[in-house]
Parts: sequence; structure tokens; C-alpha cells
Amino acid sequence: MVEDTIKEEQEQSKKAAKKAAKDAAKAAKKAEHKAAAAAEKGQQETTGDESKDYSVGLYGVTKMIQSTGKHADRNFVMVHDLSTCAKDSLVWVRGRVHTSRAKGKQCFLVLRQQSSTVQCVLAVNDSTVSKQMVKFSGSIPRESIIDIKAKVVQVESKIESCTEQNLELHVVEIFLVSAAKAQLPLQIEDAARPEKSDDPEALKIRVNQDTRLDNRVLDLRTPANQAIFRLEAGVCKLFRDILSNKGFTEIHTPKIISAASEGGANVFTVSYFKESAYLAQSPQLYKQMAIAADFDKVFTVGAVFRAEDSNTHRHLTEFVGLDLEMAFKYHYHEVLDTIGNTFTEIFKGLRDNYAREIAAVGQQYNVEPFKFLEPPLKLEYAQAVTMLREAGVTMDDEEDLSTPSEKLLGRLVKAKYDTDFYILDKFPLAVRPFYTMPDPSNPKYSNSYDMFMRGEEILSGAQRIHDPEYLVERAKHHAIDISKIAAYIEAFRFGCPPHAGGGIGMERVVMLYLGLDNIRKTSMFPRDPKRLTP
Amino acid sequence: MVEDTIKEEQEQSKKAAKKAAKDAAKAAKKAEHKAAAAAEKGQQETTGDESKDYSVGLYGVTKMIQSTGKHADRNFVMVHDLSTCAKDSLVWVRGRVHTSRAKGKQCFLVLRQQSSTVQCVLAVNDSTVSKQMVKFSGSIPRESIIDIKAKVVQVESKIESCTEQNLELHVVEIFLVSAAKAQLPLQIEDAARPEKSDDPEALKIRVNQDTRLDNRVLDLRTPANQAIFRLEAGVCKLFRDILSNKGFTEIHTPKIISAASEGGANVFTVSYFKESAYLAQSPQLYKQMAIAADFDKVFTVGAVFRAEDSNTHRHLTEFVGLDLEMAFKYHYHEVLDTIGNTFTEIFKGLRDNYAREIAAVGQQYNVEPFKFLEPPLKLEYAQAVTMLREAGVTMDDEEDLSTPSEKLLGRLVKAKYDTDFYILDKFPLAVRPFYTMPDPSNPKYSNSYDMFMRGEEILSGAQRIHDPEYLVERAKHHAIDISKIAAYIEAFRFGCPPHAGGGIGMERVVMLYLGLDNIRKTSMFPRDPKRLTP
Repeated sequence: MVEDTIKEEQEQSKKAAKKAAKDAAKAAKKAEHKAAAAAEKGQQETTGDESKDYSVGLYGVTKMIQSTGKHADRNFVMVHDLSTCAKDSLVWVRGRVHTSRAKGKQCFLVLRQQSSTVQCVLAVNDSTVSKQMVKFSGSIPRESIIDIKAKVVQVESKIESCTEQNLELHVVEIFLVSAAKAQLPLQIEDAARPEKSDDPEALKIRVNQDTRLDNRVLDLRTPANQAIFRLEAGVCKLFRDILSNKGFTEIHTPKIISAASEGGANVFTVSYFKESAYLAQSPQLYKQMAIAADFDKVFTVGAVFRAEDSNTHRHLTEFVGLDLEMAFKYHYHEVLDTIGNTFTEIFKGLRDNYAREIAAVGQQYNVEPFKFLEPPLKLEYAQAVTMLREAGVTMDDEEDLSTPSEKLLGRLVKAKYDTDFYILDKFPLAVRPFYTMPDPSNPKYSNSYDMFMRGEEILSGAQRIHDPEYLVERAKHHAIDISKIAAYIEAFRFGCPPHAGGGIGMERVVMLYLGLDNIRKTSMFPRDPKRLTP
Repeated sequence: MVEDTIKEEQEQSKKAAKKAAKDAAKAAKKAEHKAAAAAEKGQQETTGDESKDYSVGLYGVTKMIQSTGKHADRNFVMVHDLSTCAKDSLVWVRGRVHTSRAKGKQCFLVLRQQSSTVQCVLAVNDSTVSKQMVKFSGSIPRESIIDIKAKVVQVESKIESCTEQNLELHVVEIFLVSAAKAQLPLQIEDAARPEKSDDPEALKIRVNQDTRLDNRVLDLRTPANQAIFRLEAGVCKLFRDILSNKGFTEIHTPKIISAASEGGANVFTVSYFKESAYLAQSPQLYKQMAIAADFDKVFTVGAVFRAEDSNTHRHLTEFVGLDLEMAFKYHYHEVLDTIGNTFTEIFKGLRDNYAREIAAVGQQYNVEPFKFLEPPLKLEYAQAVTMLREAGVTMDDEEDLSTPSEKLLGRLVKAKYDTDFYILDKFPLAVRPFYTMPDPSNPKYSNSYDMFMRGEEILSGAQRIHDPEYLVERAKHHAIDISKIAAYIEAFRFGCPPHAGGGIGMERVVMLYLGLDNIRKTSMFPRDPKRLTP
């Protein structure tokens, strides 16, 4: 991967966040006891003397669900399916209390189920809904899970604050299934607030990234996060399905390895019984061995580890690699084109099948739609250098792209070709690993490539040297200790077809496809040099 | 997982294998130089004086393929597609030299492509095939990769030794693309020899497991291994597709964790910058957090690590976990039945779509077809205890299944119900982890289950306690230090639906489905306490 060394100044905001989180936790502890007592009291009153409670049995705290019965008679409906229910029909819904507001003899609840919301109403009447029942409903902490039985009622004027805008639920039974703390470390409403809001007051109420990650279980409940991780699952599914259709076989490669795979730098050490071992920085050797073992075209999806102390918006110490490797007949462009085409198909699949998720992310974050060409734009490194020089950058022919140059190039390419995805072929040999096949027509270059989304590298790949003697020669040229890579070289002594491949960072693809600004937004439980929890 | 303590005596065979491998390596070094010289000589003779070589240009060693040209005019055909080619048509094929036999003026080669083989013939003639060309062909080491141009010729009598039995290839051009060592550490023929062979001589020529694993690149080329890993890819694909169709979302969970997930025993330690971290023994906490975060139904496929010094036929230190977790409404059987049904669909998918792979494995290993019922058989633990007692086993009601009892039970169930798959529900509470939900109707039992294939456990799962207070109570009962699992408990304080799930060992499923005797046969690059390479 092209390295970058930008250290982002997150320290300041992190400290502030920690303090805020600490304060919130303290307040929460206090409020929790209070709320639990209130809920309890609401229930106790059902047997109290103040007035007769004719709603007994229609509300309350459910005993912890321990699989005693099946309640097969309860007709549960998903919130997003409510609009298909017959007018005035009675349904059961399980969901979270998103917001609640008790107002005299009425209680308004917004019930949330993943990204769908619906308004629920309880109003005291003479026979079925007692004031105790309304009070109980109003005392349930936000984010608690409840079961309700309710009548589906059409409304005249749209309910703008809910995803179900044309109906509301008139509650006839309500039970608390699982209570949330009364005081939460963050409010879903705040965590979900659009970044593009025009309201300066609203923009002040931001949830800091560390607060989000420290309380990921809550943070993941926002509509944007629900969408991000569903789309991420889609990227993996598309990657695998597209390659399976092209005749690739999925393999699984070991993460614990006996020797550091890429030279020993930036590798995590593991205690392995009485020995030391390492965490694989890439599945590359194993993918190549699978090719040498006649699997012809392989892919693997799995954890990749980098012990790099990079605290940037795009580095993680553990991420998911989408890796592929493919034997070819005579030219590595057979592979390059297969990878390029795979990306095109992924982008089309996302556009066509995940429009709802993309829109949900767009509700919170400012995102330009992702643009791509078919077939993808392919440039040679020398062309990129020319474009950069024309834009005023001073650089040598064989110099690697700096991070600012990489980003500038992305903008230049976007302006000239109107695409957010492109392939850069023929990298200088000097900046690639020893196992990269040199360009046969120009010894300064190599049969290697990177691919970019919105100006950031998301794939690095190459034709690998499949000839053991030449591999030794190139390793020596790089001053690599041959004894340490003997096993790697040995794999090519039993006949190996020419092959090429590449590794894709899953979280980067999702971040850049959606135009997000930090890779921690696309890793469900991110790991970086300073974060190992949750 | 139910533990077993059987230590298999592999030490003896391992030593023998190591010696054999060493000897072979020595012999190989010698022979290699000889063969390389011979091949070189064969080629040199093309320009020699002995007799005019009219085949110059039609054979030889190809320059290392470095992507100089594309040879777009070469019509490459797969071996298994040759039977669809027009009679006497000219085709190009790339494959390995499986065997070769030079016989005077003729050379017979068997060309192998993955699991397909075809006979190739070169015979000296007056104009196109010189004796130098035949000699060159005969000198190519086995397992080398070659390109041939050949005429597809129908044969009268079937060629029993090849998968293409009704045709052979008459070679008109032949080029060595990638040479193998002349002396290989194992012969594919030996490694592929049927274990059920009646020939006592043939049975003696066995390739030891460690020799296979030490030379995995060669070993993986056998038809059985090609089939095993294609079927394994199928298991993963089926698992994911079936669950995706049931509304599950794929997630990715971190492998590096800050605290040992299951109590601290059997966990690998990682140096994490200036701290220590651990490798996750299961994705369970993260699956549960995803449920608490409203993902409702999730699965994840990824590496799982166990620092257990178990040298048995069924333990690995790193394996692939197929994990799932699902929120339910009132009874964990909603989940149990989903998992059971998922297995049924996987078994059907394998039977219907991988018949060729199953047959290929059956060619080498004695395998009884896998039997299953639809819906799957579901027994309660107490029933199993009764069956075992009737068969003479002495055990307490709340005692865990020993490995011999587990196997015996598998045989009893097979005899009585004719199924290789069954579900055992309601395990004794005492033998399950603290987070397991107790059975509400009998405090001796729990809402937990294992699933078995051919009498071995392949899934362990349960309803998890979703109530934080009750979780604390159960942890205390197990004398667990609450401070160490505070983060785990915290995840349930924001409202969490009741949920259940399970974890499946991928390699075990493939091993047991195919009726193989060792899990190292179904891990492409296995890791055990004594093996970290390749």
C-alpha cells in the first residue's frame, strides 16, 4: 500500500469526548435508579388504591423472556409493513421506545424498529386505558424494548417525524420487554442528526466520534449506521457472488503464521505455546500457494493485521481484506481487466440494490453520488505523473505518489474524465515489493497497479514473479535475507502458472463509495493503535 | 464445546514422515540439476548438428511469461471441454504433465488440469515432429506446466487411465511454461491412491499426513483435495446464501480483543503496541452486541483461535467459524429451528450441487453417504442419557457427554432414526457457560443445544441471558470476576431483545459431511500446537 504519514489531530477531541462520556456516565447512574423506581411505581399503582385500575393485565413489565411460552396467537407485524395492514386491524409490534411524551391524559410514543418509526398513542378512556396505564407508558425509558398490541389507524395529516407518515397505532396493550438505562451516554436523535443541517444550534449538538465508538451498541442504532453496515454486507456479497460467477473458488488462509510475511516490519507478535508467531499482514503467500496448487482463480475474505502506528482517517490495525488471485495465460491484463470489471459490477450492484441504504446515509452525511465509467478508466503511471506535473507538482518519474499527490490526482481525473474510480497501471518498479514482476519493455516500471476511489487507494496488486530463480534474484536485489523467505520461494518449485492478483480493503471501499470521512465509520468495532474496545 | 481428551498417537508416524521427507529432499536436489540439464540439452539439440531438426519453433522452453504479448489467436480449451470440440480440430491446452513415457519414437504424456486428465501423443514423423521434439517432450519433469497445440482425435478403445476416455490429443506444438523439480517430495499418483484399494502392494505406498502437509502445494493437487476445498467453498456459500435469504445481515467482528472472551484459558496473547491483547476465541460478544444494536439477525464467517494443546483428529488452534445470532420473540426454539433448517438446506445444497466433488472424494476415501431427516431429529438431553444408559453407560443426569459417549450416542441415533444429523436440546445447566439461559421449567437444565454430525459435535449454542442483572447473578454463581466482564454486561443495559445463536466449525462440518477421519484434511493450511507451516 502506498504509505501516508499524515497524523490527524484527534487527540484534542478525544480528551474532550472522554470527559463528556465520564460526566454522562455519572449522571446516568443517578437517573437510572430514579427511573427504575418510577417504572416500578407506575406498575405498583396498578394494584394501588388511588383509583380502580381497569387496565390490569393490559400493561406492565414482562417477566424476563426465558422461553416459557410461544404466544403463537400474537400476529407480529414489522413497522415498515404496517401500511399493508387492513384499516383498523389489530396487530402486535415489538420495537424500541424512540421518544415518548406524556401529556395529561395522553401519551405519545414513537416506536422504532431498525430504521422505521411509527407514532403510537394512548389516551385515557373509561373502560380499557386507565390513567395508570398511560402513566406507566410515559415512564418507560427511551431505547427500551416494548411489545404493543394496537389498532392501525389512518391519519389525515402526515406525521412528518416518522417513516410511517400516513398511520398511527392506537395502543390497547403495552408491555416492557427489556428496559434501557434511563440516562443514556448518547441520544440516538443526536447521533443521527444531519451534518448538513442549516440550523446552527442543531450543529452544536454533535456526538463525538469516541463517544460513539465507546458506546457502539447505541451508536449503531442510527439509521445511517444501520444502512452503512447493511451496505457493507452487500459489498462482500457482491464481491463473492461476482467472482464465484467468474469461476473463482473461495479459500481460507491462516492468520497465525510462522514468519512475518512482508519483511517483519509492522507485524503483530503472538505467543504460540512455547514459540512466537505472527499475525498475517495479508493472505498473499497462501493465495499464491493455492494458485500453485491448481485452484486457478481464488478469493478470500478475512481479517488482515497491520501493526502500524498510523493514527489517520484511513488506517486500521485490523481490517477485512477482500483478496483475489488468478492464474493467467500470457498477460496480467487478463487479471487487471477481471478486477476492473468486478468493481464495475460491485458499483452497479450497490446502485441498483442498495439505493435505500445510500439514501439513508445521505440523510445524515453530505454525499455526492459515486460516479464510474464502464469499462473503467485505465491510466499508466507515467500519464499520471504528466498530469500532476501539469498541475504544478514536482516529482521524479520513479517516485511514489505522496498522499497529497494521490488526492490531487483523484481531483484531476474526476475533472477530466468524470469518474470516481480509476485504475493506475505500471507503477515504478522501485516502489513495489520484491515479488513484483518488472515490466518487460521498460525496466523502470513494473506489471503492477493500484485502483482508486475518490482519490484514495483501495486496491494494490501486481503480476507476481512465478519463477523461483528470478524471485531469488529480485529478493537479493532488495537485500532480503533469502533464508527467511525460503518457504515462499519453495512454493514455486513445483510448477506454477503466471498469476496476478490484488487485495482490497473492505472498510475503505465502503467509506469511499459513500463518501464518508473516516474509516472508523465503516468498521463495526474498529481497531487502531489507541482503540481495542469495545 | 464439549471437550475431549483423546490424544492421538501421531508422534510415531510424524517422525517417520520427517525422515522420509528429508531423504526425498536430498534426492530431489541431486535429480533436479540432472533434469534441468537434460531439458536444456533437449532444447540445445534443436540447434545441434546430430541431424536436422525440422521442428524448430514448434517446441522448447518458453521465456518466463512476463506479459510481453497476448497470443490472442490461441484458442485455449479446458480439458473437460475437449469432448465438445469438433473432430480433428486444433486446440491449445495449458496443463500439467501428470505422467510421461517416452517409448522409442513416441512419447505419451498425460496432461492434467485440476481433476481432468487427457492423453497426449507425440510420434516422430518426417516433416513436423522431429526426434529432438519427442525427446524434449519426454524430458519434461512431472508437474511442470506446458502449453500444447494439438489435434483432438477420437479413439476406438477407451483410455481407462484418463478422465477424457474417448479422445486423445495429437501434439503439434509443445512448450514448457513452468518447470517443476525433477524429484518431487511426493507423487500425486501416490497421494491420490484410493485408501480402499484391494491391492495390498498399492496400500503400502501411502503418503504420510505430515509429508502431505509439509508439501501442501503438491498435496492439494489430488482430485480428492481439489474436490474437498471446492465443497468447502460450497458450505460457506450455502451458509451465507441461506441465511441472507432468511433476512440475516453479515457482520465482521474484531479478532484482536482487549480481554480474554471466555474466561482467559486457552487464549493466545498478542503484543499490541505497548500493551497486551488477545485473539478472539469466538465472535460471540460482538454478535450479541450487533443484536443489541438492532441488527436483528446476523452471521459472520471468520477465523477463530483456541490456544488449546489438544493434538486430536478434530482440534485446530485456528479454524473458520460460521457463527450466527438471532433475536427472537418468545422462545429460543424460533432460533433452534432456524439453525436446524439451515443445516437441512446446506445438506440438500451439497447433495444437489456438489455430487461430482462428493464422488471425487469417494474415489479416494471410503465414505458412506450422509443421511439426514427433514425436519431434523430433535432430542432432549434427558432422552439421550436414557438411550446411553440403556446401552450400558453409567452417567449422572447432569454430567456432560464424554467423547466416547458422544460417539456411541451417534451410533445409537443412527441405528434408531437413520440420520447422521441431529439436535440435542436442553443441556444440563451445570456444564454450560454462565451466560446460558437456564430452563424456566427445570433448574437442572438450560435453554442450550448442541448439533451433531456422524456422532461429533459441530455446533454449540444457546439462548443467552439478555438481562444484565440476571447475567451478573449467574456470573457470580460461576465465581467469575464481574469487573473483568463489565463491558460484556454493559452491552445489555440499553435494551436488548431475547436472542440465541450458535457457532459452527467449518472444517468439522466438511470433515464429517464427507466422513473423513482428520480435520487437517479439510483445513487448507492447518494450524495445530505442532504445526505453524506452511
